[in-house]
Amino acid sequence: MKISIIGVGLIGGSMALKLREKNIASFIYGIDNSQQHINEALDLKIIDAGADLEQGIKDSDLIILAIPVDAARKLLPNVLDLVSDQQTVMDAGSTKAGIVGAVKNHPKRSRFVAFHPMWGTENNGPKSAIAESFAGKAGVICNKEESAEDALNIVENIVNALEMHPIYMNAEDHDIHTAYISHISHITSYALANTVLEKEREEETIFQLASSGFSSTVRLAKSHPEMWVPIFKQNKENVLDVLNEHITQLRKFKSALEKENFEYLEELITNANRIRGILR
Amino acid sequence: MKISIIGVGLIGGSMALKLREKNIASFIYGIDNSQQHINEALDLKIIDAGADLEQGIKDSDLIILAIPVDAARKLLPNVLDLVSDQQTVMDAGSTKAGIVGAVKNHPKRSRFVAFHPMWGTENNGPKSAIAESFAGKAGVICNKEESAEDALNIVENIVNALEMHPIYMNAEDHDIHTAYISHISHITSYALANTVLEKEREEETIFQLASSGFSSTVRLAKSHPEMWVPIFKQNKENVLDVLNEHITQLRKFKSALEKENFEYLEELITNANRIRGILR
Repeated sequence: MKISIIGVGLIGGSMALKLREKNIASFIYGIDNSQQHINEALDLKIIDAGADLEQGIKDSDLIILAIPVDAARKLLPNVLDLVSDQQTVMDAGSTKAGIVGAVKNHPKRSRFVAFHPMWGTENNGPKSAIAESFAGKAGVICNKEESAEDALNIVENIVNALEMHPIYMNAEDHDIHTAYISHISHITSYALANTVLEKEREEETIFQLASSGFSSTVRLAKSHPEMWVPIFKQNKENVLDVLNEHITQLRKFKSALEKENFEYLEELITNANRIRGILR
Repeated sequence: MKISIIGVGLIGGSMALKLREKNIASFIYGIDNSQQHINEALDLKIIDAGADLEQGIKDSDLIILAIPVDAARKLLPNVLDLVSDQQTVMDAGSTKAGIVGAVKNHPKRSRFVAFHPMWGTENNGPKSAIAESFAGKAGVICNKEESAEDALNIVENIVNALEMHPIYMNAEDHDIHTAYISHISHITSYALANTVLEKEREEETIFQLASSGFSSTVRLAKSHPEMWVPIFKQNKENVLDVLNEHITQLRKFKSALEKENFEYLEELITNANRIRGILR
C-alpha cells in the first residue's frame, strides 16, 4: 500500500522503516515542514519521495500523523477533509483524549484510528529512526468503536507488522494510564537534571562520576520540549494528579530521613521493590 | 596475590571475576555471612574457598570489604586490628566520610584505602556478578594522603585492572557529589514506583503499557533496602539537601502546569536538556 507519513521523525521514521521491511509499504511519501528532515529521510531510504500535504494524501491508502500532539490535533480535521472512504488515517500521539475530541463530530471520523505506540527515546529526527523499535511493546488503539471496521483492520495489520501487541482502551483511560507510566517519568527526569545542574556546578565532576544508575534516571531529561510541552498541556489534569502524588511520596522519604526513622525508610523502599514483580 | 573478599555479592563478586581474569588474583577467599552466597560463589568460580574472617585475612595480601556501608564501617576497625604492615585493605562502599572517620585514629589506618567504584545495578548476590562491570567507569579513591604509599599503589593497580579511571577526592566531597549523582536517583526512583503503585491499582495495565522510558526511570526502585538504607543513613545531610532541591524543582513544574504557563514549562525543559552536553 502507499503510505504518507506526516512528520518524518523518530516515530514516523521508525514506522516507515519497519513497514517497508515487512513489505506493507510499497511507496512512502514524507510530509514534513523541515526540508532537512525530508532530505535526511530520503538519504536514509526511509521515504521514497517528499510531498506536500494534499498531493501526498491524495495518492495514499494510509496516512500516518507522527507530529507533536498539539499540531496533530490541529491538523487532523484538515486531513480528514481530504480523504475518501477508501483511505485510512492514524496518528501516533502520546495523548489521546484531545485528538479524539477534536474530530468527534467530523463527517469522516470513522476513517481515523487513534493510536499510540508505547515506545520512544530521548532522540528525535529521521536519523534516530530504528526499524525494530516497536517490537514487543504495546500498541494502544483508542475508541475503536468510532472507527470503521475496514480502517480498524488496516491499523491492526500495521500494529501486527510493527510486532506490537494491540491493547484497546478509551482515550480518557489511556491518558490517565500514560500520565503514570510515561509522562511523570519525564517530569521526574527533567526535575532531576535541573536539581543536579542547579547544585552541582562542577560539570566535569558530573561527567566523570555519573554512574549507570544516574544516566538511566536522567536519560529522559534529554527529551525535547517541542514534543513534551504539548503532551503536558493536553494531559494537564492527569499529570498534575500524578505529580502531586509523586511529591507526596518524596516527602515521605524526606520525613523518614529528617526524623531518622529508618524503619519507615526501609518500609518505603520495600514497598517500592514491589515494582520488581511487575516490571521485569 | 591472595585476596579475601568480604561480602561475595554483586560488587565483591564482580571484582573477583575481573581480578582473576587479569591474573591479579592467584587465590580468592570468600568471607560471607550467607553460606548460600559462598556456595553460589564457589559454583560460579568467583572464589576458590570460603573462609572465616581471621583465617581469610591472615592468608591474604589484599582484603576487600564489599558489604553494606554500615556493616563495613563497623567491621573495618576489626579488620585493621588483624593486618600487618605488609597487607592492604580496601572497601567499595557508596559513602566515604563515615568509614574514613571510623578509622581516623586507628594505628593501622595507613593500610586502608577508601574506594568507591561508580557502578552498580539493582540486582544483588554472586549470581549478578559481571567481570566487565567496571570498565570505563570512575573509581574514586578518597583521602589518599591517609594511606601508605605501597597500599595506595596496590589499590591503584586494582583500579587499573578493573579498567576504571581513578579519581581522587576527599571523603566529604565524595559524599556530596554522590548524593547528587547517585543517591537522589534512587530516592526518585523509589518514590516514582510508590506513586505508580499507589495510584495505578491495575498492575496488569502497568505491565502491559510500561514503555522503555518508564522502565529505565524506575529500574533503580528494584534496589534492595539492605544496601540503601545504610547509605541514606550515612549520607543523611547531603541527601536531604538534594532531596529538598529536587522537591523545589518538581514544584516548579507543578506551578507551570497549574498556571498554564507553558513558556515557563518550556524553559524548565530546555534547561534540563543541558544534561545532553554532560551525559552522552
